[in-house]
Amino acid sequence: MSNIRHALSARRADDFAQWYQEVITAADLAEESGVRGCMVIKPWGYGIWERIQRLMDDRIKATGHENCYFPIFIPLSNFEREAAHVEGFAKEMAVVTHHRLIADGKGGLIPDPEAKLEEPLVVRPTSETIIGDAMARWVQSWRDLPLLTNQWANVVRWEMRTRMFLRTSEFLWQEGHTAHEDAASAQEHTLRMLEVYRACAENDLALPVIAGEKPENERFPGAVETWSIEAMMQDGKALQAGTSHYLGTNFAKASGIQYQDREGSQQYCHTTSWGVSTRLIGGIIMVHGDDDGLRVPPAIAPHQVIILPMLRDKEGDDELLAYCEELRAAIAATSTLGEKTRVLLDKKPGKAAAKRWDWVRKGAPVILEIGGRDMENGTVSLLRRDRLWAENGKPDFATPTRDDAAASLPTMLEDIQKNLFDQAAKRRDDNITRGITDMAALADFYSSEKRYPGWVEVQWSKPTGAALDTVVEKLKSLKLTVRNVPIDSEPADGTCIFTGEPAVERIFVARAY
Amino acid sequence: MSNIRHALSARRADDFAQWYQEVITAADLAEESGVRGCMVIKPWGYGIWERIQRLMDDRIKATGHENCYFPIFIPLSNFEREAAHVEGFAKEMAVVTHHRLIADGKGGLIPDPEAKLEEPLVVRPTSETIIGDAMARWVQSWRDLPLLTNQWANVVRWEMRTRMFLRTSEFLWQEGHTAHEDAASAQEHTLRMLEVYRACAENDLALPVIAGEKPENERFPGAVETWSIEAMMQDGKALQAGTSHYLGTNFAKASGIQYQDREGSQQYCHTTSWGVSTRLIGGIIMVHGDDDGLRVPPAIAPHQVIILPMLRDKEGDDELLAYCEELRAAIAATSTLGEKTRVLLDKKPGKAAAKRWDWVRKGAPVILEIGGRDMENGTVSLLRRDRLWAENGKPDFATPTRDDAAASLPTMLEDIQKNLFDQAAKRRDDNITRGITDMAALADFYSSEKRYPGWVEVQWSKPTGAALDTVVEKLKSLKLTVRNVPIDSEPADGTCIFTGEPAVERIFVARAY
Repeated sequence: MSNIRHALSARRADDFAQWYQEVITAADLAEESGVRGCMVIKPWGYGIWERIQRLMDDRIKATGHENCYFPIFIPLSNFEREAAHVEGFAKEMAVVTHHRLIADGKGGLIPDPEAKLEEPLVVRPTSETIIGDAMARWVQSWRDLPLLTNQWANVVRWEMRTRMFLRTSEFLWQEGHTAHEDAASAQEHTLRMLEVYRACAENDLALPVIAGEKPENERFPGAVETWSIEAMMQDGKALQAGTSHYLGTNFAKASGIQYQDREGSQQYCHTTSWGVSTRLIGGIIMVHGDDDGLRVPPAIAPHQVIILPMLRDKEGDDELLAYCEELRAAIAATSTLGEKTRVLLDKKPGKAAAKRWDWVRKGAPVILEIGGRDMENGTVSLLRRDRLWAENGKPDFATPTRDDAAASLPTMLEDIQKNLFDQAAKRRDDNITRGITDMAALADFYSSEKRYPGWVEVQWSKPTGAALDTVVEKLKSLKLTVRNVPIDSEPADGTCIFTGEPAVERIFVARAY
Repeated sequence: MSNIRHALSARRADDFAQWYQEVITAADLAEESGVRGCMVIKPWGYGIWERIQRLMDDRIKATGHENCYFPIFIPLSNFEREAAHVEGFAKEMAVVTHHRLIADGKGGLIPDPEAKLEEPLVVRPTSETIIGDAMARWVQSWRDLPLLTNQWANVVRWEMRTRMFLRTSEFLWQEGHTAHEDAASAQEHTLRMLEVYRACAENDLALPVIAGEKPENERFPGAVETWSIEAMMQDGKALQAGTSHYLGTNFAKASGIQYQDREGSQQYCHTTSWGVSTRLIGGIIMVHGDDDGLRVPPAIAPHQVIILPMLRDKEGDDELLAYCEELRAAIAATSTLGEKTRVLLDKKPGKAAAKRWDWVRKGAPVILEIGGRDMENGTVSLLRRDRLWAENGKPDFATPTRDDAAASLPTMLEDIQKNLFDQAAKRRDDNITRGITDMAALADFYSSEKRYPGWVEVQWSKPTGAALDTVVEKLKSLKLTVRNVPIDSEPADGTCIFTGEPAVERIFVARAY
């Protein structure tokens, strides 16, 4: 099939990073804003985010959470109080020091020295401390528990090296924060939300993930347990796609979140927090994209079906548009994946073939081209984005009747959703290696000519403290990291690849974003 | 009906400002966050905002807009470029000057002097300049026009005197930004979006509004025309509930938004912007609230129907819950106001009577209390929030059969929606005065013992510049402002109340938030 003329110039196999950037541009997802580390999310990219939000929000609400909104600014003293928090990651933050601009007398503007804040404000990098303050006000008795909140918000972490969707100074996310009576109920909830993330990633985003616990060195600062879902990108690297933290009583003590228990004595709450972000879109690109651009899973595609009338700026266009509009209405009346089918009749000016490739690059799941001949025959020319090329190297158009197309699309979209998941799951499974039991073999595996050898499941003794630091350093020299211990992994039955001690569990190592 | 024991302690008629604050607390809408000028929006308040967002977003998308997301930070130089912009309102802004915190050596944290930004960043007070930068990249040809964008975002304007929902340093809003080929199409779009706001306010929020053009002194800085929807609060004051601006080529010139026209020459775009914010919730409180708390119009109520089982912590509770759950399912299967009916079975611990009053204060449109006797009789005890009190001063419960209740609720909710609008429209119309033709009479009118005399429609000569300044000063001495010139107002036929010159139009004057 070497005669295929792909829609992108970069190839995944040649330069994955370059390819990633090209997909973002070619699919018109986002662009640099000119403001350091901040991107502009364009309509197709933001439309995908809106779909993710809608589906994730439904799942979060279905588990009993209510949405709130907390201030974007966090007083400096909150961070002083939460020393572990700051130590971990929160040093690189945007700090507001003034509340007014004045003319500098040279035609420019400067922060007004007279309007310096007594206490600087930090633009939230995450909201544990400010939400903790609210929880301390809201929780009085065991009857108030569990307290289940969530917010959709922008957060800022000053990143020195940014990459669109994967690591930007400002990003969009949801952060759930909950308070519970005891460790058991908080830990149960931590895993419940991890399962919500797994279900959303796999069912809605068609992203196969491994859900498991992060090792101690990868824990959120202040957390007692950190769990994650990890997805494998097409270059074999891992992407942490969501995290769920059991925070013990650490944040409750820092914020004073106390309740009167059933026996009348004061107790600290056990809290959890968990988040997913626009980073998920980076994962979708790197899992589902191909050399023709993005492929958007139908469940999160802003438009699932694009109708492209081949207009000729002459007589007959009106008739063709009417034919397309009837088709649009017929498709819009159907349901797929539990919702009304989302179909767009694209009447914008431009040649149909050019527009076809725009939609291919954007990854619309199904494109229907309708020309005069289709209209005469009562057919449509149908292109599935997940099966783009025929054996002869040409786009693989089918030509069902218009009625058959409208009737079969709901099932076809469900099939595309499943196909994208299955392709990704097979690739993930094919690129997981087991049975490497010593460091030399591990080093050898990752130094092989094969550029993206994927993940390796090793057995380890679950070292902590300094012993873990040594392991992390060893892995770092191979550009590897420990990912997570899968919830459902087999028990250990060998020795630790790092220490030679008896292994206690199996853990994934991988290169990671 | 003096024997009614209202659910609030403050009365609208006695102290409207105090009453407003009490509604916010009693309905559990929001609270002070401890961060200057920023509030925490609590679940019931945020749920109302989510409903407004959903309905407004549908209307904005139906007019061809796509949502994007632009950076929260705007470089200082953007404001220098847009001098008129800064002059108008944008001086009081949150300025980010540092990107790191470090220990101060005394146990605290300070902005790191080594991490001072070369160019300070402003937290967006509105996004004309940063979106203008994007439009300049996106628009090349007339084929790219109109460019119709919108974003939902948080913005910050450093306010010295804040009041929850009405004026907070951080608030949530949508801001639409569009670019067009010429003045006519941009002006037409400005009015189209004003009409979207009017329709959403009146149909979804049950807020009667006057849509019209603001006078020159009330224009958005840099705008050629500013239009607004104005709502009358129960204290007779006006609330500007949404604005739509025709910006001419002012912002296009500042940002370089140019296109090649159909004849091949370069032209500046004509742009518009328009926004509504969480301020709308302040308007809903002050229009629909009463001495028992908030009354939420069903179209934007997070829950339209609350089922309160009168549990007794003993045998029979399970049976009662099953009876309620059947009712909940029956109601949830119905549709009202174009959507599935939103019904909550509130099983939280607490006495039914106390919970009833919580939901009355929150303003849930319909409350169904179900006790053992109801179950035996196959009935429900139904309370309409808009007709709370019977003649005898007791809550006016109806007791339809369960089946009748489920069947009649959709129509009842539509009736409540209409009733809230009609009540507000009647009050608005009753408090508009016409025919005052000289300043002495106007001063007399507003100095009368009647505390909230409402709005006065006067005729004026549409003065500009210094003459307008004089009018504004005169009105200010009466604590009055000019609101807008209604789109559909009668032609002028008299003399200007301010200048004595022939009048050219009719305009509303009012006290305002």
